[in-house]
Amino acid sequence: PSVPRAGELPVLPPDVDRDTFNKAIAELKESLGKEHVELNDKPLVDGWYMEHPNTHDAFHVVEQSELVSSATVYPGSTEEVQAIVRWANKFLIPVFPISMGRNLGYGGAAPRLRGSVIIDLGRRMKKVLKIDGQNATCIVEPGVTYFALYEEIQKTGLPLWIDTPDVGGGSVLGNCVDRGVGYTPYGDHFANHCGMEVVLPSGELVRTGMGALPGKNGADNPSWQAFQHAYGPSVDGIFSQSNFGIVTKMGMWLMPETEHQSYMITFPKEEDFEQIIDIIRPLALNRILGNIPQLRSVIQELAVTGKPKSHFYQGKDPVPEEVIRSHAKNMPCGDCAWVFYGTVYGPEETRKMQLDVIRQEFAKVPGSKFILPQDVPEDHYLHARVRICSGVPELRELDWLNWKPNCAHLAFSPITPTKGEDAKIVHELVTRLHKKWGFDSLPTWCVSGREMHYIAEILFDRADEDEKRRAIACMREMIAEAAAQGYGEYRTHLIFMDQIARTYGWGDQALMRLNETIKDALDPNGILAPGRAGIWPKRFRGRGFQL
Amino acid sequence: PSVPRAGELPVLPPDVDRDTFNKAIAELKESLGKEHVELNDKPLVDGWYMEHPNTHDAFHVVEQSELVSSATVYPGSTEEVQAIVRWANKFLIPVFPISMGRNLGYGGAAPRLRGSVIIDLGRRMKKVLKIDGQNATCIVEPGVTYFALYEEIQKTGLPLWIDTPDVGGGSVLGNCVDRGVGYTPYGDHFANHCGMEVVLPSGELVRTGMGALPGKNGADNPSWQAFQHAYGPSVDGIFSQSNFGIVTKMGMWLMPETEHQSYMITFPKEEDFEQIIDIIRPLALNRILGNIPQLRSVIQELAVTGKPKSHFYQGKDPVPEEVIRSHAKNMPCGDCAWVFYGTVYGPEETRKMQLDVIRQEFAKVPGSKFILPQDVPEDHYLHARVRICSGVPELRELDWLNWKPNCAHLAFSPITPTKGEDAKIVHELVTRLHKKWGFDSLPTWCVSGREMHYIAEILFDRADEDEKRRAIACMREMIAEAAAQGYGEYRTHLIFMDQIARTYGWGDQALMRLNETIKDALDPNGILAPGRAGIWPKRFRGRGFQL
Ligand SMILES: Cc1cc2nc3c(=O)[nH]c(=O)nc-3n(C[C@H](O)[C@H](O)[C@H](O)COP(=O)(O)OP(=O)(O)OC[C@H]3O[C@@H](n4cnc5c(N)ncnc54)[C@H](O)[C@@H]3O)c2cc1C
Ligand SMILES: Cc1cc2nc3c(=O)[nH]c(=O)nc-3n(C[C@H](O)[C@H](O)[C@H](O)COP(=O)(O)OP(=O)(O)OC[C@H]3O[C@@H](n4cnc5c(N)ncnc54)[C@H](O)[C@@H]3O)c2cc1C
Repeated sequence: PSVPRAGELPVLPPDVDRDTFNKAIAELKESLGKEHVELNDKPLVDGWYMEHPNTHDAFHVVEQSELVSSATVYPGSTEEVQAIVRWANKFLIPVFPISMGRNLGYGGAAPRLRGSVIIDLGRRMKKVLKIDGQNATCIVEPGVTYFALYEEIQKTGLPLWIDTPDVGGGSVLGNCVDRGVGYTPYGDHFANHCGMEVVLPSGELVRTGMGALPGKNGADNPSWQAFQHAYGPSVDGIFSQSNFGIVTKMGMWLMPETEHQSYMITFPKEEDFEQIIDIIRPLALNRILGNIPQLRSVIQELAVTGKPKSHFYQGKDPVPEEVIRSHAKNMPCGDCAWVFYGTVYGPEETRKMQLDVIRQEFAKVPGSKFILPQDVPEDHYLHARVRICSGVPELRELDWLNWKPNCAHLAFSPITPTKGEDAKIVHELVTRLHKKWGFDSLPTWCVSGREMHYIAEILFDRADEDEKRRAIACMREMIAEAAAQGYGEYRTHLIFMDQIARTYGWGDQALMRLNETIKDALDPNGILAPGRAGIWPKRFRGRGFQL
Repeated sequence: PSVPRAGELPVLPPDVDRDTFNKAIAELKESLGKEHVELNDKPLVDGWYMEHPNTHDAFHVVEQSELVSSATVYPGSTEEVQAIVRWANKFLIPVFPISMGRNLGYGGAAPRLRGSVIIDLGRRMKKVLKIDGQNATCIVEPGVTYFALYEEIQKTGLPLWIDTPDVGGGSVLGNCVDRGVGYTPYGDHFANHCGMEVVLPSGELVRTGMGALPGKNGADNPSWQAFQHAYGPSVDGIFSQSNFGIVTKMGMWLMPETEHQSYMITFPKEEDFEQIIDIIRPLALNRILGNIPQLRSVIQELAVTGKPKSHFYQGKDPVPEEVIRSHAKNMPCGDCAWVFYGTVYGPEETRKMQLDVIRQEFAKVPGSKFILPQDVPEDHYLHARVRICSGVPELRELDWLNWKPNCAHLAFSPITPTKGEDAKIVHELVTRLHKKWGFDSLPTWCVSGREMHYIAEILFDRADEDEKRRAIACMREMIAEAAAQGYGEYRTHLIFMDQIARTYGWGDQALMRLNETIKDALDPNGILAPGRAGIWPKRFRGRGFQL
């Protein structure tokens, strides 16, 4: 949906008048070429995942025209990124870097601060700079998607896997700096990155890790993608989920291809999840579960068929449990409450040993059923998981976005230890508050070992103002209630960044003061992504920009 | 050896006169209790590993009295650490935190800047604060050694392993913040830490990771040891190998106990190492090698018996290869050039499968021999490795410190990718320069996957001034030659910190400028460990303190 835009366009960033802005843009066009600078002054179009806008948040939960940029600039090289940053310092214009801008559910391509200039790195900087088949690593630019990296590797014929999130159109680099997750044994993306090149808010360029040591005769360092640290402090972490720098190159570890076997296990009762999670924990700790498996509520079996909610239920309220289960009964999963999607890796004997233990352990849950890909039809979601869990990018996960008309989602993503008792507290409040605010609850636990990312997606109709208001209210209440119990989110949508950052307030906001101290030192003019991760530079602090 | 000390004692830090110093010390005694503040004004005693000094570098390669503190202070709590830091800011007295101070080979307990006050955290802050048997984690204070943590876990009866370096008297926390290594699958200590509490140079206290979110009713966050990140930037890395904060608590992951089998493989020819390493790489990448194995030169088989060099060879020059091999011939390893120490983990079938592949692959090196613990006598070093590689702290590795009279060592620790061609460049220059400067060369490759820590220990006689001079010259030349080829060290002794930091100079010292910017923001008075990791605070920069 697209509503006509009110007011003079483009929207300007704070503290910048239209004359200065126009002058600045003219200068930017001069230096980058006018075809590489676009004003955001046309109607906003939400598009869809593969044709997403870089002007605003396609999954807008506030008004569509609220989180918008003033312009987009397309650098073609690291030097041009540096030039843009210097330009921003000169005119005090806030810039917001995106790689692909497919951060849907977390703000899409929108800047945190209205009127910022989007630096769209993805359009022109999209080379796979290196694939090292021996050491199983690569170096990518921001515009390399999972699909692109996958194809590039296929071309080489090397037996290497990438790790992909549930949808493959994102940026390998952008997802990693936002600390996203995938589902092979390399699913913790940030843990598997190795070496960065970063443009600092001053415009200076720095290489981290071994890349900081020049290679022979000016070559890249031979250990840049082999070892994660330089000598001295390990700085990479501060460039994740922050506004301290723009990452222009990144190394990633690739996984040597291996045999694999995916499976699903269904569990009959809603209250089984505590026992399931307590079974998962030792299996994960002992590496019998080889990857980042997902435990999904059965409603997702319905949603991921791609059929709309109305196909299953006519009411406006959340689909009642009986209705969900009556449909599930006639589907491959059968009548159940939870579905666990797992994969084991390695040679046949290893997989067999692991599967034996897995089957035996989960069999302790009365009524659980173990299902292999050959047991379900070709179009069942399990086959998509087989691919995802062996590093093949997919789009299948988008299918649940047909659930409602104009459907968008908002992700609530708290972290808990892999323990039934913790899971219960979070699951209970999420279930209760979804119901209170009138939403279906579609939780997935992504288990990475000692912790789980609990991902609950609120699905809402972008054309329904009341639904959007309720989605926000539901999020705010979930964040607050979870924090009161000691649980916090790993990542969030732009409009909840301030609230969530504040929940990490131990010691009277000590961590935020540390972040602000670093921010002010690196970005004294406050030009880089003000407000991202709740970190406001001095010049914007305390002026009412916090949400 | 201890020589009488010249000049007035204690030695003062720069910019502090004796009156101010005395006044400051009086005030410190007042606030902490006078029994917890000690002046460094007595004769310096080197002691040995288990009775090491905290006044200076027991393995002094410069003059014994050069790298010394003015005083040592023993905080009993985090609040007292904060009080000390505020005191340091008040009097502009540099402080240097150590946990156990057993950083031998890298500077021991000495401060980088002469006359700094040592904050010895280990003596009084040595509690294991928590052991979580379900999620396999712990929280430790700085004074918890590997031995102590091991015993604490034994007391609980929980089936959990720690990971220990080659000697067990170090601090679990101190080693980790210096990014040390061990030899089980959890050998990358920093990668396996989870959550910190840090006193900043301002005296402020911050918790990192999920610890930044207060638990219910003021408890610690339930996910603090489960998930490594907070929301927002990941700051932990900047507190490793730096002078940005004093870590007072740290979470560590523990490994669930498992069955294991250690072995050694000998290889006949010096030039075999390239092939060996190219065999190791795919095995490591495919996780067939389960831990951080070591590839050691055969001379270490002689040294680790604990017999002095003179037992094997009478000359002052390095032991000739023929002589080494003629001794080796009569030892369990037999006549060989290299010994690989590995361990496989898991149930018998898994281990068997892995060992089959390992034996088959290494058998490609003509003349290699596979040896199990039962094939060697009880006192053979392989039995020590069985323990180390299953998380049992040891002292056996100290035995090679009998090599010379007054023996100390200095570690040269460059990183290379796990590739024969890179290994060859570094190994060649190390071998050549050890020979040039008259030292036996005792290299060990610690392979952690895509990269190897090459650790070459220069063994020198602390009473022999000429040997010490040569040891330094050898180090300086190795650092420079390695850097010219693109190889850098992961860690180093105090006196080489500046030189090594400078080799990470890509982009005209861009990384150092970033480090300095952060340093100046966090520590404007420059009181915390000036010069550590080559990072000098503004007040000391460019004043000739760099070495
Ligand atoms: C159906 C569906 C399923 C999804 N499943 C997953 C999943 O399984 N796992 C997962 O992690 N996510 C998932 N997502 C969320 C999201 O789509 C992905 O994380 C996606 O990879 C993020 O978008 P992007 O890669 O284009 O990153 P971008 O939008 O380019 O980057 C994300 C953010 O990081 C910052 N950033 C980007 N590039 C840089 C840079 N170069 N320097 C500094 N900062 C930068 C920006 O603030 C940006 O907003 C899902 C989304 C949908 C719609
Ligand atoms: C024979 C022998 C074998 C060895 N083998 C190994 C090995 O296998 N692996 C290995 O890693 N090392 C090895 N070492 C080196 C060293 O002994 C260990 O790394 C040891 O653990 C370091 O000393 P420590 O733990 O007492 O740390 P400390 O000396 O307490 O700390 C090390 C440094 O970290 C900083 N630091 C310490 N505590 C803090 C804090 N709380 N906050 C901020 N900064 C802090 C200080 O600058 C300090 O100098 C070996 C040494 C010898 C003699």
